[in-house]
Amino acid sequence: MNLLLLEEADFVSADRVVLADRRFTHMQEIHRVAVGDTLRVGRIGGLMGKATVVRLEKHQAELDVSFDQPPPAKLPLTLVLAVPRPKMLRRLFQTVATLGVPRLVLVNSYKVEKSFWQTPFLHPDSIRENLILGLEQARDTVLPEIIIEKRFKPFVEDRLPAIVENTLGLVGHPGPYPACPRAVEGPVTLAIGPEGGWIPYEIELLGKAGLTPVQLGDRILRVETAVTALLSRIF
Amino acid sequence: MNLLLLEEADFVSADRVVLADRRFTHMQEIHRVAVGDTLRVGRIGGLMGKATVVRLEKHQAELDVSFDQPPPAKLPLTLVLAVPRPKMLRRLFQTVATLGVPRLVLVNSYKVEKSFWQTPFLHPDSIRENLILGLEQARDTVLPEIIIEKRFKPFVEDRLPAIVENTLGLVGHPGPYPACPRAVEGPVTLAIGPEGGWIPYEIELLGKAGLTPVQLGDRILRVETAVTALLSRIF
Repeated sequence: MNLLLLEEADFVSADRVVLADRRFTHMQEIHRVAVGDTLRVGRIGGLMGKATVVRLEKHQAELDVSFDQPPPAKLPLTLVLAVPRPKMLRRLFQTVATLGVPRLVLVNSYKVEKSFWQTPFLHPDSIRENLILGLEQARDTVLPEIIIEKRFKPFVEDRLPAIVENTLGLVGHPGPYPACPRAVEGPVTLAIGPEGGWIPYEIELLGKAGLTPVQLGDRILRVETAVTALLSRIF
Repeated sequence: MNLLLLEEADFVSADRVVLADRRFTHMQEIHRVAVGDTLRVGRIGGLMGKATVVRLEKHQAELDVSFDQPPPAKLPLTLVLAVPRPKMLRRLFQTVATLGVPRLVLVNSYKVEKSFWQTPFLHPDSIRENLILGLEQARDTVLPEIIIEKRFKPFVEDRLPAIVENTLGLVGHPGPYPACPRAVEGPVTLAIGPEGGWIPYEIELLGKAGLTPVQLGDRILRVETAVTALLSRIF
């Protein structure tokens, strides 16, 4: 946790917060704070700043907070991902938030197992929890927007074209395609497939929506690694 | 597992292997193979090719194998990493193998907790197991070389200069440094610090050994994400 993220409910007055949950435990066990210590804080969706510990008790801490710094810029990106297997999904939400993705669309795909949609990690509370972990890691305050699209075709035909409009549309796909471009200026829409890749029909529909296939070489990457590798290259 | 990696001990003749371990279970439960099915295989340290299932029993399978394809090229890189916390280390070995890093040096650093060195994930058998998982993911056969350096100063002063010689030497470090270069031609030596970063004294010694600080922006990345992001940008 490189930034302590504060919710509106934490505030007991305009410049005071009281913490008693995971964040309190982390302050005690990892940062080993004492009264008078300062910590980096951010207000979810708002500015970042400093907190000073003014009261420390067995189960809670009170902090005096001030905010003066904007969070880092997000990437000019919409990321479209086939839903990965649950154990990857949790970390993926964290990684997406850490990297500064402002909007993530999770879509179905032929090679997504139906059971993946049943995971508790797709519950809004769980998504928010993992996004916050990712923001705390990166020192950011703004939650990415997460859009769930359980049906591939209606999303790609009816809603994706408006997202792709005026952006560079790319779909990561192994095969005889151009290498993924580097240092792109301007907004991008990037789609990344499931383990096993998109099927030809999906690539065709994504193409009609404005996404051009690009590849990253012979090595097959886990979804989380592919997301990081593609974004690091594109931006 | 995108590639079934075979050890010398698996061979019962020049072109036959018998599998009864994790790989057998994976073939049954994930690939649901039947007699006559083919799978991609690789010989550890050698060529890749195809296997045909010729016998399938309750606890073992026999495969007919042939090899004709070289593994993908490695990156021209030595990666120097401060030892991360154990739960990251395991995945890091996988990621490093997946990305095609041929040589990884794990070093101590002021901000590495002493306890990190006690982890069973640094045992040679565990390292090898995780490297193999990473190779299976990427479809590669060649194990990266792993070098353990428990003392920072003797490594950086006495052995690092010879590694850096005739390479581009970089150290990832947040701060007012140039952005990490893109699409570098030729060999690179890259050092990445612990959570919390290198201390100034370490940056100074790494500098004397030929490593120039470069940064990746304001966001603080987990070690595994930083490795992927830096390598994707440099190569």
